[in-house]
Amino acid sequence: MNGSAVWHPFTQHAVEPAMPAIARTDGAYLETHDGRRILDAISSWWVVTHAHRHPRIMDAIRSATETLDQVIFAGLTHEPAEQLASALVAMAPAGLDWVFYSDSGSTSVEVALKMALGFHRNNGLPRSRIVVMEHSYHGDTIGTMSVGARGVFNAAYEPLLFEVDTIAFPAAGREQETLDAFERLTRGREAAALIVEPLVLGAGGMLMYPASVLTELKRIAERSETLFIADEVMTGWGRTGAMFACEQAAIAPDILCTSKGLTGGSLPLAATLATDAIFCAHYSRNRARTFFHSSSYTANPIACAAALANVGIWNDEPVAERVAALSRMQAEKVARFSQDARFENARTTGTIAALDLRVGKAGYLAEVGPRLRAFFLERGLLVRPLGNVIYVLPPYCVTSHELDRLYEAIDEAAELAGDKK
Amino acid sequence: MNGSAVWHPFTQHAVEPAMPAIARTDGAYLETHDGRRILDAISSWWVVTHAHRHPRIMDAIRSATETLDQVIFAGLTHEPAEQLASALVAMAPAGLDWVFYSDSGSTSVEVALKMALGFHRNNGLPRSRIVVMEHSYHGDTIGTMSVGARGVFNAAYEPLLFEVDTIAFPAAGREQETLDAFERLTRGREAAALIVEPLVLGAGGMLMYPASVLTELKRIAERSETLFIADEVMTGWGRTGAMFACEQAAIAPDILCTSKGLTGGSLPLAATLATDAIFCAHYSRNRARTFFHSSSYTANPIACAAALANVGIWNDEPVAERVAALSRMQAEKVARFSQDARFENARTTGTIAALDLRVGKAGYLAEVGPRLRAFFLERGLLVRPLGNVIYVLPPYCVTSHELDRLYEAIDEAAELAGDKK
Repeated sequence: MNGSAVWHPFTQHAVEPAMPAIARTDGAYLETHDGRRILDAISSWWVVTHAHRHPRIMDAIRSATETLDQVIFAGLTHEPAEQLASALVAMAPAGLDWVFYSDSGSTSVEVALKMALGFHRNNGLPRSRIVVMEHSYHGDTIGTMSVGARGVFNAAYEPLLFEVDTIAFPAAGREQETLDAFERLTRGREAAALIVEPLVLGAGGMLMYPASVLTELKRIAERSETLFIADEVMTGWGRTGAMFACEQAAIAPDILCTSKGLTGGSLPLAATLATDAIFCAHYSRNRARTFFHSSSYTANPIACAAALANVGIWNDEPVAERVAALSRMQAEKVARFSQDARFENARTTGTIAALDLRVGKAGYLAEVGPRLRAFFLERGLLVRPLGNVIYVLPPYCVTSHELDRLYEAIDEAAELAGDKK
Repeated sequence: MNGSAVWHPFTQHAVEPAMPAIARTDGAYLETHDGRRILDAISSWWVVTHAHRHPRIMDAIRSATETLDQVIFAGLTHEPAEQLASALVAMAPAGLDWVFYSDSGSTSVEVALKMALGFHRNNGLPRSRIVVMEHSYHGDTIGTMSVGARGVFNAAYEPLLFEVDTIAFPAAGREQETLDAFERLTRGREAAALIVEPLVLGAGGMLMYPASVLTELKRIAERSETLFIADEVMTGWGRTGAMFACEQAAIAPDILCTSKGLTGGSLPLAATLATDAIFCAHYSRNRARTFFHSSSYTANPIACAAALANVGIWNDEPVAERVAALSRMQAEKVARFSQDARFENARTTGTIAALDLRVGKAGYLAEVGPRLRAFFLERGLLVRPLGNVIYVLPPYCVTSHELDRLYEAIDEAAELAGDKK
């Protein structure tokens, strides 16, 4: 757009091509003002679950505006937040009995980290080290960058980040090294918490690891009273095949972060779920032990109403079946590339498929990334590779035919790797 | 609410009385399910400007749901965000030409801090020290707590906070000390930025200081190429009498943070405005110089539509006149306490009035705080003192008669100070 005053996120404006303006969203599609339809193969940064503008969610938003806008959430409450909290507790792994609201994935993780430190401190044994997994991404605020992989994303802000302890990504065949490293780090009982993206590391390159690793990490954490934080901001709401990825490892984390799919992709909202033990550590007649956190729009009633409609969709529509069907389709369709020398690591976890284009220089800033993106967009496909990592993470309404179009385009796109090898 | 799963913000559940559930908001009022009407004298944590559920904003939200939900904001754009950005640039102090969206006041400040570090680093002269003002509050994430006053709010998280340089609050008669301290801190040209809440420090106790201090701070900042960040999350949108508080000092900050009043109190949205110099420092064919920040719901179209409607209200309704009238009323009505020995520091800046109840033990956790809150609530008034600091920060639709009721209650409430002196 000419004369735009917008500074876009994760965008280098000096090299970014002109950005299409989206006039309308519908199902799996984004539509431009001149009627072009773009298949949203990445669910608009992983937020849209069922479909863009699911009628029930849009109705709930409209309906909420008839009674409520923001209501201060200290000292007062409201039904959309209360009902949603009860629903989340019922849907989440057992033992997560408390719901703290915020606005974004990043803030849900900031809340989790603060709860972890507060828990140990209020129990009289302060701990402040956080253990993180190599290649993790947990957000872009100072706290969440601190617990994420250090690199090009955050090099400029390094002086403000706190130190963490890192365990290796549990690559195939090297899982035990990760577990051993974590076990060593917890021996001194100084680690307040381990934070992980369960099963799939998103922005780190859609890296996948087995549920058994999660189960073992949880066991080690328990033994040393290290809190286990599951950042399910990307993995929640069916994305990995189950409602929450932790279920696949049959574990209940001490803290679970959710956002994105929480409102089905409609409005910003996040929640941090915690166990009763964590809540109780902050529950005291001593007001200095309060959990001191808020944001102005905490538990926004309109966003809570949207999330509650999303929960209703999960309860009333065959969403689990759709997720299972999409998971099968993704596995079948990406398999065509598993023996293809132009690619490596064709992989899926639930509805998420990814594969790495073989290039001379890999990594998030690999030159091939923007060229791939432009290639797909020309074909009416919104695909946003993480460097040379191409992934398909669509809304659950996507059809087999649409996926075929997408994988056909990925097949053609492989030619782009050649000229820079 | 019995059986609630909600963990409320800034709430000690062990001593918090039962929380009324709000069923409906309307004008200056919150209504419970049993029909009780509560005057929202603090604009639901300072977010509601015109009135709860201004029809034009509610209509804009409903209307937006007919075309858009979330659209990824990297590589694509949409009219609500584009039009809002242009409007914000037109309304903000001159020179703030770029708008970066996020979801909350805290994240708008996180973005500001990152822009400041990125600016210096990309210009080849890295700086990372942040200068802050005593008693400041900028949010509850790790980064924003780091630049806020250290104390009971964040003691538990201290191991994760980064160090800052603090200048004294410019108390009456001691302004020069503050300016001198800042001047000394900038001599080494190591300070990346100064961050301040212009004119009024909110959560720190509604502390007020004159515009002339801001003007001088800006002059000193310029001389040393220290960026000036104005956190207008609370002060923006008319609250201090002008659209933005910086206008009253006739300064244009390098970075301005806004949220709360941005959507008139309807939906979560924030924006960080920056100068062209800051944008240009990140504009490069070198993609490593990108401003690496986003959140999933960046520039949510429905929230942008709500904000755009809010801008329309400012343009089409006599909001500035309302703000001026409210400011006069506040000044007149709080004056009754200026010679009252039970209170001290009766003060106003624009529409904000505050006064300190004389008690034995002051501070945020002063025992009198919760008792005052309960006292007001019994009388159908939502007032939330910061310890012994009582403030009135109402929606602009509040009437003179409603304010009279409020100040009458404050007069009575003074009796509560006695029993603990």
